[in-house]
Amino acid sequence: MSEVYAARRERLRERCSAGGGAAALISRPANVRYLAGAAPQGAVLLLGLGEDVLLCAGPPEDQLADGRPDEGLRVHALPAPAGDTAVAAADLAAAQGAESLAVEEHHLTVARHRALRSVAPRLRLGDLGNAVEQLRLVKDEEEIALLRIGAEIVDQALSELLESILVGRTERHLALELERRLVDHGADGPAFPTSVATGPNAGRRGHRPTDRRVEEGDFLSVCLGAAYRGYRCEIGRTFVIGTSPADWQIELYDLVFAAQRAGRQALTPGAAYRDVDRAARQVLDSAGYGGALPPLTGHGVGLENDEDPQLAPSAMGKLDACVPVTVEPGVHLPGRGGVRIDDTLVVRPEADGGPELLTITTKELLAL
Amino acid sequence: MSEVYAARRERLRERCSAGGGAAALISRPANVRYLAGAAPQGAVLLLGLGEDVLLCAGPPEDQLADGRPDEGLRVHALPAPAGDTAVAAADLAAAQGAESLAVEEHHLTVARHRALRSVAPRLRLGDLGNAVEQLRLVKDEEEIALLRIGAEIVDQALSELLESILVGRTERHLALELERRLVDHGADGPAFPTSVATGPNAGRRGHRPTDRRVEEGDFLSVCLGAAYRGYRCEIGRTFVIGTSPADWQIELYDLVFAAQRAGRQALTPGAAYRDVDRAARQVLDSAGYGGALPPLTGHGVGLENDEDPQLAPSAMGKLDACVPVTVEPGVHLPGRGGVRIDDTLVVRPEADGGPELLTITTKELLAL
Repeated sequence: MSEVYAARRERLRERCSAGGGAAALISRPANVRYLAGAAPQGAVLLLGLGEDVLLCAGPPEDQLADGRPDEGLRVHALPAPAGDTAVAAADLAAAQGAESLAVEEHHLTVARHRALRSVAPRLRLGDLGNAVEQLRLVKDEEEIALLRIGAEIVDQALSELLESILVGRTERHLALELERRLVDHGADGPAFPTSVATGPNAGRRGHRPTDRRVEEGDFLSVCLGAAYRGYRCEIGRTFVIGTSPADWQIELYDLVFAAQRAGRQALTPGAAYRDVDRAARQVLDSAGYGGALPPLTGHGVGLENDEDPQLAPSAMGKLDACVPVTVEPGVHLPGRGGVRIDDTLVVRPEADGGPELLTITTKELLAL
Repeated sequence: MSEVYAARRERLRERCSAGGGAAALISRPANVRYLAGAAPQGAVLLLGLGEDVLLCAGPPEDQLADGRPDEGLRVHALPAPAGDTAVAAADLAAAQGAESLAVEEHHLTVARHRALRSVAPRLRLGDLGNAVEQLRLVKDEEEIALLRIGAEIVDQALSELLESILVGRTERHLALELERRLVDHGADGPAFPTSVATGPNAGRRGHRPTDRRVEEGDFLSVCLGAAYRGYRCEIGRTFVIGTSPADWQIELYDLVFAAQRAGRQALTPGAAYRDVDRAARQVLDSAGYGGALPPLTGHGVGLENDEDPQLAPSAMGKLDACVPVTVEPGVHLPGRGGVRIDDTLVVRPEADGGPELLTITTKELLAL
């Protein structure tokens, strides 16, 4: 893997360094991990002159449990009591003879930025912007393979839950059980807090599990994600409890399913983010649910659960091949509940068979 | 509770506002929650001229599941697509006629700070510093009552685990089981990722559970915390597996126990943070384990798990009454394992009986 990380750092260097004396400081944890192979707590990565250094806040033994850093990288652990790794990196960049240092202004705090300036007053501080996030957008096949394993894990955890008895159990317990099963099947852990929503809660995006128990006639919506070696994918499904769904439940389900299918079908290389969003949104809109819709229809996944792109009405940009995204429209009717259906897919060209569905659990309306 | 939050905001105002036209922007989530009663994702609190406003990134229904904001506060949800709440707050402060706005420079990013400046160029931006963190240091009796409930929850979860069979189970499974029990007993969730460490891993601070199974003769160290209505407390214990601990295990345990007791006994109002650390540390130091010690012996708890004060050799400051802290020395011997013992206590004057121990699980060396 070492050459993978070195190649990523090289690509970043090409993107951001104008001249000879330019160094860059990466502080956002997912970005550090992407470029260094590991992101111990508080660590920053210096793309320096001559050598790249991962600066860690603590001794390696305690800090590196989360993954091994790229072997081609110098790892420097600050002695205790550890100061600010970013400040130490600026100091090091200055000592290497750098003239400028590009930092992640969208991550670095004002206070740290000021400390950098005072430790290395001759260093010209610039903005790296979202350069690393941009690199992270398109995944290589190894990254996609990790997402695929994560998707298998969520599919398995979900299918096992469906085989158990649900009526009478609380949202909290079902969520915990799902998380246990994720770990059973090899996940590092849940990618985000598992959402289980029943009855009037069903269909709410990001609903936090409560002590409400599953009842006959409920909608039950579940959204869970697995982190596998740092990569996060997610799935969301809605079920009905009991043998005979009500007409309104079937109608609402069919509608959200149609919207989600339209969104999935719009995933082609070159499609504008907003057009994917519109494809799904207009199905719900034209059925009169425009006011009840969440601000986005989907988002990128990778080392973070909620990364670029955003599939939303005002998003700018176009999809590339090998970008994994979620498609997750939903409708929630206050007091009655609702439906959400959420898949993780990888954008692929038509010639390769179109979008690759990672989360393959059925989207038929199951009555449990 | 409404008057509690209003009183906190009033105290902050007294601390930080010099003149008439000064507003303050609180963005760090735990600080927002402390002053507003809730901290929906992305929300910021404006202590404005005339009125205080909680600015939320999304509609209340989706965002306020985590707690209800103080009723004495105006809640303003930004319309979708939600922009930056901090920018909206600066805009509002300027519209209210504020001349200056103190921000949390240790939390606000450089990019957001710049956006604030550009939306309200006439507003003088200052630094609120750690003013809210300082207010949060000393807890009122209601906060301590919540910590006490959290401590009961961790004690119960731990005692139930000890009644079950441990040999052959993995660190990961034991950690998940503890987290399930925390929720069973009413916790919002774990206060931080539960650490279960066996054999050579035992005693490592912040060890992430692996697939290693508990074996006869192991040390088993466990560190878990519960969040209860936002307040976090923690406990750590070390056990031996099997009926007859080895001599080195008994010696090491007794030593860490003596260090932890010395730290607890040093908790008096007026004691310097570093003296509490030294009390525990020197016991281990004089036994020859000085090199293997973690950088701190304990830390404050409250709305965050790891808040001020730090009980560390270079920490500045003195304890007050009603400050809850952990005392958690440990020794880890690479390849062999080790011992950690961790309690949450509240500093109390001698006249009130000295430090109040919240986590009451026995600290005898149990052989399980």
